[in-house]
Amino acid sequence: MREPETPYLVVDVPRLQRNIDRVAAAAAQADVRLRPHAKTHKTAEIARLQLAAGAVGLTVATVGEAEAYVDQGVTDLFVAYPLWLDPRRARRLAALSDRAVVTVGVDSAESAANLARWLPGQAVLVELDSGHHRTGVRPRQAGEVASAASDAGLDVLGVFTFPGHGYSPDGRDVAARDEADALHVAAGSLRGVGIEPRVLSGGSTPTLQAALAMGVPTELRPGVYALNDAQQWELGSATADDIALTCQATVVSHAGGRIVVDAGGKALAADRAPYNSGAARLLDHPDAKVVLMSEHHAVIEGYDGPPPPLGSRLRLVPNHVCAAVNLADELWADSGTGLERWPVVARGRNS
Amino acid sequence: MREPETPYLVVDVPRLQRNIDRVAAAAAQADVRLRPHAKTHKTAEIARLQLAAGAVGLTVATVGEAEAYVDQGVTDLFVAYPLWLDPRRARRLAALSDRAVVTVGVDSAESAANLARWLPGQAVLVELDSGHHRTGVRPRQAGEVASAASDAGLDVLGVFTFPGHGYSPDGRDVAARDEADALHVAAGSLRGVGIEPRVLSGGSTPTLQAALAMGVPTELRPGVYALNDAQQWELGSATADDIALTCQATVVSHAGGRIVVDAGGKALAADRAPYNSGAARLLDHPDAKVVLMSEHHAVIEGYDGPPPPLGSRLRLVPNHVCAAVNLADELWADSGTGLERWPVVARGRNS
Repeated sequence: MREPETPYLVVDVPRLQRNIDRVAAAAAQADVRLRPHAKTHKTAEIARLQLAAGAVGLTVATVGEAEAYVDQGVTDLFVAYPLWLDPRRARRLAALSDRAVVTVGVDSAESAANLARWLPGQAVLVELDSGHHRTGVRPRQAGEVASAASDAGLDVLGVFTFPGHGYSPDGRDVAARDEADALHVAAGSLRGVGIEPRVLSGGSTPTLQAALAMGVPTELRPGVYALNDAQQWELGSATADDIALTCQATVVSHAGGRIVVDAGGKALAADRAPYNSGAARLLDHPDAKVVLMSEHHAVIEGYDGPPPPLGSRLRLVPNHVCAAVNLADELWADSGTGLERWPVVARGRNS
Repeated sequence: MREPETPYLVVDVPRLQRNIDRVAAAAAQADVRLRPHAKTHKTAEIARLQLAAGAVGLTVATVGEAEAYVDQGVTDLFVAYPLWLDPRRARRLAALSDRAVVTVGVDSAESAANLARWLPGQAVLVELDSGHHRTGVRPRQAGEVASAASDAGLDVLGVFTFPGHGYSPDGRDVAARDEADALHVAAGSLRGVGIEPRVLSGGSTPTLQAALAMGVPTELRPGVYALNDAQQWELGSATADDIALTCQATVVSHAGGRIVVDAGGKALAADRAPYNSGAARLLDHPDAKVVLMSEHHAVIEGYDGPPPPLGSRLRLVPNHVCAAVNLADELWADSGTGLERWPVVARGRNS
């Protein structure tokens, strides 16, 4: 395979395998099922490595992502989203259920009734808000929604939550505690209406280790851990050595004494959390900062040593790997023996 | 054409045409050539409307975008970027030049020499930094780079700049003034080395009107003006009535009294300038704010009136339309008589 042209995304396969194996081992040790969120990588090859390492199935965000993975032979999927079905999406979900075990999220009696109208008997998890304040009911209300879902004819397997408020400095352990509390309270709420929860699902990459230590979730759904990114690096949930995806970029300008490369927001995505030190990082130059990013430019300051020559290459680390992958038609897998093309099969599958 | 599933991008064709016609008329009135930046829309259909309204050609950011437009029959393109050529990109650029008139940017003697080595006689514009501090030389150095480029065997047509620092509240007129000054000084610098500049190219959507009034640029390259977005709305360079692209989204959750829709950063992009009021806007509810956006969720506050029912639709305005379009495989053109699919032919063409 000839080398692609910059900017392009490279996966360090030994690091990827190490990340997958480490989390798989920790989950097995804690006797917690792992269902990685596959919105991060959107590729069949990484999904297969995760399943081979013991994952019970995959998590996805949309019916379209589920379709892409079922087309690749994946047979157990959780759509971690409170889907609102219209006739067409209902038909797509029904067609998927003929080919794979599919579970979906609900977070209201109304969405449960709508789901049951189209897909009676559908397996669901009730979504909880454990502190991120996005979708999901308060844990004490879980039984009410579960009861309505069950009465409507759905198969309520348990509850799930995403502790997204763990994406903050010093917030990881608090969020993992909130998650454990929410799952525990919701389990009691389900039992209160006569439903025994079989699945208490949580998880995110920043909260993963703490969640395993707490022992409440029966299943965890981290996504970013397989590849990692500048957010995890800056949150402290990954080291530079754990970063398995970078963007190869070419130095195109030294104008004004600056270092400018040809990777911008259309290759790296514009995601920038308040705790991010810049618009991206440089893997091999941890003190350098991307101080300005536009669609096809990143301006670098704080580079140690003499400026890299025009035409030379730098490895950039996106702030948010899920968003960067979703911009690319392919990842280039580097196993040390040349590059292999991994198609991003679920790219853009937003619906 | 059956209706697509949410989230999807819709172009209001009458508004698009009005935006294109208004800017075309203003440019014609000022006797300034218009070369719209087509990275914004990446679609052949919008390019054709711009050319039909009198644009002299298109601007693009990459060789890949140029290839996509040449494949659609466009014959005059400026790659507004200081390309660093390697053998493969040089071959691609040479192949393009057999099919279209192609001009490219340079911002150093070294990049000019590299370009001339592969493509002797290539037409170039010297890039200036007019205050955005990205790529581009200081205006007084333009003659030095132009002279080196000419000596290396390139055909120096003139200079160009992008006044990106006009993307700030109250910064538009200052940036337009900086742009005019930079082009004027650089023109003198070229004449000082015996090169008569034929092209003084500037332009961005926020600075467009002021640039036309100043009368210095011979050519302008606005991009966003055709569609507009929440950035232009909040900068005051567009009104809500000028916004020709929205994202159709479905209300999926009322949990916790919130309004959550199924469009997030993977449909709208995560771009957020310091002056943006939120992660996106609602076209029909100007007081509402998107207070939290993740990959497939937008949480809305400040919605006037009773919450829209689950399953109902809202029209979101992305902060940065160029980034949102680059996430989609197609735009859905609404001319009032149903939706037509416009493929995003240059999506992801970053190299």
